[in-house]
Amino acid sequence: MRTSIATVSLSGSLTEKLTAAARAGFDGVEIFENDLLASPLTPEQIRDLCADLGLSIDLYQPMRDMEAVPDDVFARNLRRAEHKFRLMRRLGADTVLVCSSVSPLAVDDDALAARQLRRLAELADGSGIRVAYEALAWGRHVNTYDHAARIVEAADHPALGTCLDSFHILARGSDPKGIEDIPTEKIFFLQLADAPLLAMDVLQWSRHYRCFPGQGALDVAGLLRHVLNAGYTGPLSLEVFNDVFRQAEAGPAAVDALRSLITLQEAVGVGELPAPVVPTGIAFAELVTPDVEPAAALLHALGFTRTGRHRGKPVDLWEQGQARVLLNTGPAARRDGTVLAAVGLETPDPVRAARRAEALLAPVLPRRRATGDVLLDAVAAPDGTELFFCATGRPGLPDWKGDFAPTGEQAVDSDVRGVDHLALTQPWHQFDEAVLFHRGVLGLDVQESVDVADPYGLLRSRAVSTPDGAVRIALGVGPAPGDDHERAQHIALATDDVVAAARRFRAAGGQLLAVPGNYYDDLAARFTFGPGELEMYQELGILYDRDAHGAFRHCYTRTLGRVFFELVQRDDGYRGYGAQNAPVRLAAQHAPAG
Amino acid sequence: MRTSIATVSLSGSLTEKLTAAARAGFDGVEIFENDLLASPLTPEQIRDLCADLGLSIDLYQPMRDMEAVPDDVFARNLRRAEHKFRLMRRLGADTVLVCSSVSPLAVDDDALAARQLRRLAELADGSGIRVAYEALAWGRHVNTYDHAARIVEAADHPALGTCLDSFHILARGSDPKGIEDIPTEKIFFLQLADAPLLAMDVLQWSRHYRCFPGQGALDVAGLLRHVLNAGYTGPLSLEVFNDVFRQAEAGPAAVDALRSLITLQEAVGVGELPAPVVPTGIAFAELVTPDVEPAAALLHALGFTRTGRHRGKPVDLWEQGQARVLLNTGPAARRDGTVLAAVGLETPDPVRAARRAEALLAPVLPRRRATGDVLLDAVAAPDGTELFFCATGRPGLPDWKGDFAPTGEQAVDSDVRGVDHLALTQPWHQFDEAVLFHRGVLGLDVQESVDVADPYGLLRSRAVSTPDGAVRIALGVGPAPGDDHERAQHIALATDDVVAAARRFRAAGGQLLAVPGNYYDDLAARFTFGPGELEMYQELGILYDRDAHGAFRHCYTRTLGRVFFELVQRDDGYRGYGAQNAPVRLAAQHAPAG
Repeated sequence: MRTSIATVSLSGSLTEKLTAAARAGFDGVEIFENDLLASPLTPEQIRDLCADLGLSIDLYQPMRDMEAVPDDVFARNLRRAEHKFRLMRRLGADTVLVCSSVSPLAVDDDALAARQLRRLAELADGSGIRVAYEALAWGRHVNTYDHAARIVEAADHPALGTCLDSFHILARGSDPKGIEDIPTEKIFFLQLADAPLLAMDVLQWSRHYRCFPGQGALDVAGLLRHVLNAGYTGPLSLEVFNDVFRQAEAGPAAVDALRSLITLQEAVGVGELPAPVVPTGIAFAELVTPDVEPAAALLHALGFTRTGRHRGKPVDLWEQGQARVLLNTGPAARRDGTVLAAVGLETPDPVRAARRAEALLAPVLPRRRATGDVLLDAVAAPDGTELFFCATGRPGLPDWKGDFAPTGEQAVDSDVRGVDHLALTQPWHQFDEAVLFHRGVLGLDVQESVDVADPYGLLRSRAVSTPDGAVRIALGVGPAPGDDHERAQHIALATDDVVAAARRFRAAGGQLLAVPGNYYDDLAARFTFGPGELEMYQELGILYDRDAHGAFRHCYTRTLGRVFFELVQRDDGYRGYGAQNAPVRLAAQHAPAG
Repeated sequence: MRTSIATVSLSGSLTEKLTAAARAGFDGVEIFENDLLASPLTPEQIRDLCADLGLSIDLYQPMRDMEAVPDDVFARNLRRAEHKFRLMRRLGADTVLVCSSVSPLAVDDDALAARQLRRLAELADGSGIRVAYEALAWGRHVNTYDHAARIVEAADHPALGTCLDSFHILARGSDPKGIEDIPTEKIFFLQLADAPLLAMDVLQWSRHYRCFPGQGALDVAGLLRHVLNAGYTGPLSLEVFNDVFRQAEAGPAAVDALRSLITLQEAVGVGELPAPVVPTGIAFAELVTPDVEPAAALLHALGFTRTGRHRGKPVDLWEQGQARVLLNTGPAARRDGTVLAAVGLETPDPVRAARRAEALLAPVLPRRRATGDVLLDAVAAPDGTELFFCATGRPGLPDWKGDFAPTGEQAVDSDVRGVDHLALTQPWHQFDEAVLFHRGVLGLDVQESVDVADPYGLLRSRAVSTPDGAVRIALGVGPAPGDDHERAQHIALATDDVVAAARRFRAAGGQLLAVPGNYYDDLAARFTFGPGELEMYQELGILYDRDAHGAFRHCYTRTLGRVFFELVQRDDGYRGYGAQNAPVRLAAQHAPAG
């Protein structure tokens, strides 16, 4: 289906917005009046710019407080409308959005509303313009889609139809099934937006917290199915008011937006997206470091062995159980200190996984990496992390480990089985995008969002994972933009005996994060432990949590650059990530080393 | 009265929080459990640190989900309480906060609640501890202060009383008058917080949007009067959960917090604050600039004349009507480009104004400025702007202009009468503080907050002014922290004929901000103008607005450093600042110069 986006959904000047929408691949735009007013371009220049960019102008918006008003007010409104219709002709836009009135002058009289809207439609028709009438959720007398549709029906003019908006319909809890009763030719336009569930004034909710479909909690796909059943074939158009997007760069936001529409079409069974290829494990995590010694020492203390050396690049392979870490000291290592730069995802069908990622607008990375022999399909996640779709020792698929010459050293049996999860802090403006990306591109399930109190602000965390927990990624975001330099990343290693793993780590010279005694005093008040158990945790800095399923014991290494490791013992199906303990961990990480 | 603050209201480690509270001048603190758990200090070390800082520990908080539960759950709760009472003894804290239960296990049984709270109080009493029971606004069965007080009365134990919290009481719309019916000895503690009026879930509202008294819309002073009438003599304690304060530096936030309590005490007639000295005008605005030529050229084109030269510093006085601008090219000018660094406030009693400012914790600046002869009382506003309390040619008061040697040039009659208003963008974390500062220190009235859409984010603006409009300051804030380098400041000059003033400015070589033609097309649709009027506005870049009182015509100079000027014609009692036009102005300012 054709895709469109309202200019109010993106940041910047009108030119920047249009350019970003076109580059992302949108077919059209809704032009928001304020964006036009603030633009130095004439309507004709805007029309030409859109044509050059391959964008249609699908809607001009909005007209407000038009209908169901006293005659003299309506006469003034018509005069205003005439102005705007002239402008729309210059712009080459043929549909105008009229929002249901919020004016204190409006009266509760559907017949009057219909009569005046018909008059407006007649005026519009003379200019070749169609009027799409939409019920605002906070409209004074008209605030449900079916009410707006009834008035449109009563007005009975071919140039008058309705505009459906998923936010206005779902935020009020209206049943979207009735959409199927609206005559196809009367559905002039469809605006789509999602939103998190917030118990707040619907106007504020709408103006500040909308998000792209799939990023919130509204059943936008369910609504779309009803609209398609009603025979609608017009554009799917995003209209999102959001305080974060207002500040975000227009380019990435437009890509995020279009990705949400592609995912939405898949959810309702239209479009041609390759089916998801869900990863079956973390094949490797790649650290880029300017300073190999401390990183190697840390891996060694954790029980890893350097088993391979890349044949063409300064990259070492370290292994332990199913956990594999690449240590890259190549040119990229000059930039940012130690960072987690890439993740290998064990994938049943790497080629198809990459095709799906590309169809979902993920930037595809060059397949041949330096002088390696094995072609690897890879894309960049929104935060820049490189995601490799790969296979480890599986028949019929190229093995990425083939690029590594064995050092002769063998990985030893140890306490670490593999990777429990990765935790990646996202750029502030791209948190919702990251969640949608990992869900859409990798087919991961999304868990609830969790707030965590850091001593210097509130962090948000949201995990994505496979149903069996083979891949778990905790996406996090800091309290404010500009803190991106503090973007911590960590690798949680799974063990069946965190006490033994912590002891071995310490014996090998590793340093664990110190946890305050007050924390253990509180644990003693909250849980019952065996004799000496709590003292042992305290000695090692092991944190403890418990949910309805089981227990979680975990401890942390010191941080190297942006990266640290966690040792994790997850018992009896514990489902979380120890968020309860995060404030204590964060405070300890902020504390001056000593 | 004694003042106190909950550690959760400030950012940082527990040590940072305690230090900030003590430095600001608080008498005590409430220690929030999570702050203690995350601290590497033992309870004894915390007790000693508070003693060294001169802080009492007025409350330990909170205990949750304690009462009205089945016997086995209550037995576990008592065990937990025993742990915490031991901790409190080590800490030297004698009052614990118990919040009304939100547990699904709690039953609606006041008699059971009273019995269990009495048992808890007996246990506490044995440790010399008092239990303060508070109704959370979202408590499962107990969510009003009078309900909590009834249960306390029924429990009838001297170690059990109630804690009143202004947020929980006022957010639910409870009538605080009933507080006077609570026996004095049963009011153990008073927590104060304000909040903006937000129609949202009360738990979210409470956890993220509280603010200090006087910064929100709740009648905290009215509530405090009832509490004082009830005979309460304990501390006034601030408990504020706020996402902004969580990120703000603890030091300034603690000062802001204590200022709110001082202002609150004045509002209820306790404390000894010198009465406000409301300024009667803007005496001068001081620009600091590293590059005198463009600034002088701009002032000249605006019609200003260089009438004086400071006797001891590289500062020139420029005058026109009652508008005066100081141009400072001294050492400070090396730092930030052109900035508005100081404001002279025409003040009936400069010495008393400064005394009040100091009592309200404004940093006092040295009275003798370089080699000037005139002593000037001055303080720093939260954004660092220096505020001078001064007199211009008033008998019996030193005249600041005495420090300036006349150049011999005379200010000419022109179109500018004086300063209409100043607009000062505030650091992101200090917007609410700035509003409270200008209200409390200068006795200005506060107008409604206005949201303005900038192409790159949402700005917020709130004006403070004298009732007669002689002093008007529009305080603004950007969309996010980290944008502080874009902190625009502007000086709006009042004229009776903005068209003449704009023409004269252009004729003198000044450049006005270009306003898009689309804006005028829209004006034509919205208002009726005389023949040629709109074309004249468009030619000059004059913007137009109208409110219920009158009309507003205004235009802008190009920006120099962080500073620009506005020419303003305010007719027939127009009350606003042209916020309606701000998006167009902001877009034009973002546009590449050309």
